[in-house]
Amino acid sequence: MSPTPYVTFFHAPHSRSGGTRALFEELGVDYDMHVLNLKTGTQRDAEYLAINPMGKVPAIRHGDALITEQPAVMMYLADLYPEKGLAPPLGDPLRGPYLRWMVFYGSCLEPAVMDHSAKREPVPAMQSGYGDYDCVIRVLAEQLEQGPYLLGERFTAADVLYGCALRWFLMWKLVPDLPVFRAYVERVTSREGIQRADRKDEALAASQEG
Amino acid sequence: MSPTPYVTFFHAPHSRSGGTRALFEELGVDYDMHVLNLKTGTQRDAEYLAINPMGKVPAIRHGDALITEQPAVMMYLADLYPEKGLAPPLGDPLRGPYLRWMVFYGSCLEPAVMDHSAKREPVPAMQSGYGDYDCVIRVLAEQLEQGPYLLGERFTAADVLYGCALRWFLMWKLVPDLPVFRAYVERVTSREGIQRADRKDEALAASQEG
Ligand SMILES: N[C@@H](CCC(=O)N[C@@H](CS)C(=O)NCC(=O)O)C(=O)O
Ligand SMILES: N[C@@H](CCC(=O)N[C@@H](CS)C(=O)NCC(=O)O)C(=O)O
Repeated sequence: MSPTPYVTFFHAPHSRSGGTRALFEELGVDYDMHVLNLKTGTQRDAEYLAINPMGKVPAIRHGDALITEQPAVMMYLADLYPEKGLAPPLGDPLRGPYLRWMVFYGSCLEPAVMDHSAKREPVPAMQSGYGDYDCVIRVLAEQLEQGPYLLGERFTAADVLYGCALRWFLMWKLVPDLPVFRAYVERVTSREGIQRADRKDEALAASQEG
Repeated sequence: MSPTPYVTFFHAPHSRSGGTRALFEELGVDYDMHVLNLKTGTQRDAEYLAINPMGKVPAIRHGDALITEQPAVMMYLADLYPEKGLAPPLGDPLRGPYLRWMVFYGSCLEPAVMDHSAKREPVPAMQSGYGDYDCVIRVLAEQLEQGPYLLGERFTAADVLYGCALRWFLMWKLVPDLPVFRAYVERVTSREGIQRADRKDEALAASQEG
């Protein structure tokens, strides 16, 4: 049932492309994987810069199309396999909220967390695209408190994105250790596909150490 | 041909919601508008925080769905009116690149421009979600050089987003004054719908001064 051609996935273990790998496993579809090594810096090779001139993972290639940026990659994949039900389809009342939270991740949560962790002087909240860190954390926590998933009863690709990212942020103490974050991360990352992705990624990371 | 109910648009003149107004006018559809005044601070009223707890514009409401974050709002609207052809549909080879650039705007371009204008010490490029400012500007310029539009021959909602934003960034000297940026802004913002949105927004801004 996979569309031909397979999607090629440009991945590095223990990086922001982990969420995409988890999504592939949750979708349960086949994919071709091209592994990069961020330690030796293969993401800066000319060959990869032709895929993503930003030199960043994740990226995917599907036919002639190149897609980068984690939330975009995930939205694309979830729509590519509609029968898996991981994206509310066009016309579904949850479609808009789904887009909202996918974009919020890269436009608000990541910049807020990065700035906060680097202890940088915040830009005035009215100019900043994300307001301020406390506001972002509060808005996200309030949304997740409605749970069990980001969009309510329905598990979607947005949960793969936020579940994997919040696990990472909690581990590195980049977000406050709120019970609502812990419970959500546990709920999402205990899923079979994500667990399988974790095991595969551990093995891959170990092979890059060698 | 507008879907019922109309979309309600939460807007403030001379703000990040200008691109959404331009998109409504390019789509040529009817909408209900709820105007906020960022100077008197009505975006902080409880009534509006129930729409967007971030207290930011743009936001839209369609039926019971609330959508915030400029790129998400635009993706939603362009998909809502497929007959207008401003989003490559699902299955189109340009769909993935369209998502990529919509997300790139909020995840890379805006944070890079904000940090650069605030003269903040950059986060190391490998950790930063956007690498560094020069890289973002170069990657965007190279994409636009292929032109005439962001995705090539086809004008889409992504051009409304980037055209309006780059006009603003050039005006405030937040991006380098490259011929490719100037020509692109001119090409996009001279369109009839965007010109109409500009005129309406000028009148609205003037009425808020009074
Ligand atoms: N905005 C990008 C960020 C991706 C990103 O920063 N990836 C990191 C891995 S965690 C990377 O590839 N870094 C390698 C480098 O910058 O050289 C996205 O959301 O996909
Ligand atoms: N990440 C948001 C940013 C929106 C934003 O920052 N809007 C500004 C207007 S330019 C705003 O509403 N500021 C009012 C405030 O922060 O009080 C998006 O992309 O929509």
